[in-house]
Amino acid sequence: MRTHLITGGAGFIGSNLARSLCAAGEAVLLVDDLSNGRMEHVADLTASGAALFRRADCSDAAALLAAIEQAGVGPIDEVWHLAANSDIAAGVSDFNVDVRRTYLTTVATLDVMRRIGVGVIRFASTSAVYGDLGDVAITEESGPLEPVSAYGAAKLASEALIRSCCESFVRRADIYRFPNVVGAPATHGVLLDFVRKLKATPENLSVLGNGGQQKPYLHVAELIEAMQFIAAQAAAPYLVVNIGPPDDGVTVRAIAEMVRDAVSPAAAITYGQGARGWVGDVPRFRYSGERLRALGWPGAGGSEAAVRRALGEIIVQEQAA
Amino acid sequence: MRTHLITGGAGFIGSNLARSLCAAGEAVLLVDDLSNGRMEHVADLTASGAALFRRADCSDAAALLAAIEQAGVGPIDEVWHLAANSDIAAGVSDFNVDVRRTYLTTVATLDVMRRIGVGVIRFASTSAVYGDLGDVAITEESGPLEPVSAYGAAKLASEALIRSCCESFVRRADIYRFPNVVGAPATHGVLLDFVRKLKATPENLSVLGNGGQQKPYLHVAELIEAMQFIAAQAAAPYLVVNIGPPDDGVTVRAIAEMVRDAVSPAAAITYGQGARGWVGDVPRFRYSGERLRALGWPGAGGSEAAVRRALGEIIVQEQAA
Repeated sequence: MRTHLITGGAGFIGSNLARSLCAAGEAVLLVDDLSNGRMEHVADLTASGAALFRRADCSDAAALLAAIEQAGVGPIDEVWHLAANSDIAAGVSDFNVDVRRTYLTTVATLDVMRRIGVGVIRFASTSAVYGDLGDVAITEESGPLEPVSAYGAAKLASEALIRSCCESFVRRADIYRFPNVVGAPATHGVLLDFVRKLKATPENLSVLGNGGQQKPYLHVAELIEAMQFIAAQAAAPYLVVNIGPPDDGVTVRAIAEMVRDAVSPAAAITYGQGARGWVGDVPRFRYSGERLRALGWPGAGGSEAAVRRALGEIIVQEQAA
Repeated sequence: MRTHLITGGAGFIGSNLARSLCAAGEAVLLVDDLSNGRMEHVADLTASGAALFRRADCSDAAALLAAIEQAGVGPIDEVWHLAANSDIAAGVSDFNVDVRRTYLTTVATLDVMRRIGVGVIRFASTSAVYGDLGDVAITEESGPLEPVSAYGAAKLASEALIRSCCESFVRRADIYRFPNVVGAPATHGVLLDFVRKLKATPENLSVLGNGGQQKPYLHVAELIEAMQFIAAQAAAPYLVVNIGPPDDGVTVRAIAEMVRDAVSPAAAITYGQGARGWVGDVPRFRYSGERLRALGWPGAGGSEAAVRRALGEIIVQEQAA
């Protein structure tokens, strides 16, 4: 049994990861400031004693350290650093949001790891570090890295700091560059957005951008599986992996139609102008997927299946809300 | 006449840039926290009224904004953002030094630019963003970017944030990736280090690493010339340029011998172990130089000439000290 710290542990991906680690019998400490995460996402795990939870701002090293010490879980074997501003569009109006919540959480997490002697970090990064490379099949070596959102910039900044720490106290760092990830408990994203819009105005769904944006999607269950698969490999001290489905993705138009058909079949869909949904959006990207295949991951079911599965879950989630 | 703000304006490169801009009749405001820079580096410019100086911590947006407002220079046309921790090795023991002094100075500078409506930034970046790519001829598109020092990580983080701001209020950003830069007033670096060591112990010069490190050098006068040359081009809104000499550099061994011959010819030189001088050192890198040539810069005199010229200046500087 190993002991894991998950920063952002009450969030969308953190809570799913926690559930998976607990199911495998691992000891899990969750830290989250609950700005985006919710206690109810992990209530089952904390109630059963499978996981411990401490509320703290992970951009504050002293607060994070105190939370860990007060939890009394003993030595931590590895850190899954997921705490971040998950609302990319929010960083557009003020980049300080991502500087603090996406980058300074990484600084503080590494600072605490160094102080308490933890040498393993698994980091939730993103395709947004690449910026808009157009129709290139992106590999982990692709350049230049020109993020077009403060979120992507702060994730790239985090990767860079983690990399430099591999010269000193970090002995294993996994950098998982996520695609779009869907599933429940959804806290943000295009599916939740569309479902809520159609509940508010069942006769119309208005879409940001012209609907032509095409991106690869993973279901969160597939993502967790991939991360744990990679984490279990004997690998380089610093390993960057693009995690994605085995396809080039689905369009926003296809997603809009899928949500309409499921939630409000008679609704009209109206599209905006331009290829980008918002400032900082990357209208199209695709991963080569070569490294992930080379590592031997059996692969995911595909973007459309992931979106369809998540849509069903989100509809249930919103009915319960 | 345009008005320029130089952050880190009393530092090694900042003071040289200021002198050049003032000589061209431009209005110049220097801001520096004097942690590494010195008033005496710019005393001639401030005494003559050619430049204004304000002391402020450039990682504090409110302090930087107040410094600018109190200077009363009117609208600023462009910002040369040079404020950073120039002592790379210092960031090794504590990465927070570079987080604050190299990265958060960029955050605050951009924040102030956005607030007062400045859309042009020229940024002092570094070869350290590439990390250790070995013997590759590095282009601006080279990847992966894996900095091995907190300094390189913080510079890459800064580049990323600047890039993302090009989607909103920044309309022109130049990213100058410096090689090793030498000249006076030297505040750090291998030449100053060797000269001072030989003054302290004239019979022996002890070198960190095996002396095989080989890097390209520019004289600061050449660097300033290149930056201003690039700045004057009609270019892309976001332009990254590797600035270097037209050669593959000189070795630390050659530099050690040059300094010994000039300062204390009878001294013995002793070398350490290993290719790296210190944690975070990149023992060897070289630029392809293609983009700089394509922009039409006539080029520099070469690494050896740059080191020789700087050595003479530093010897004079240290005699006066």
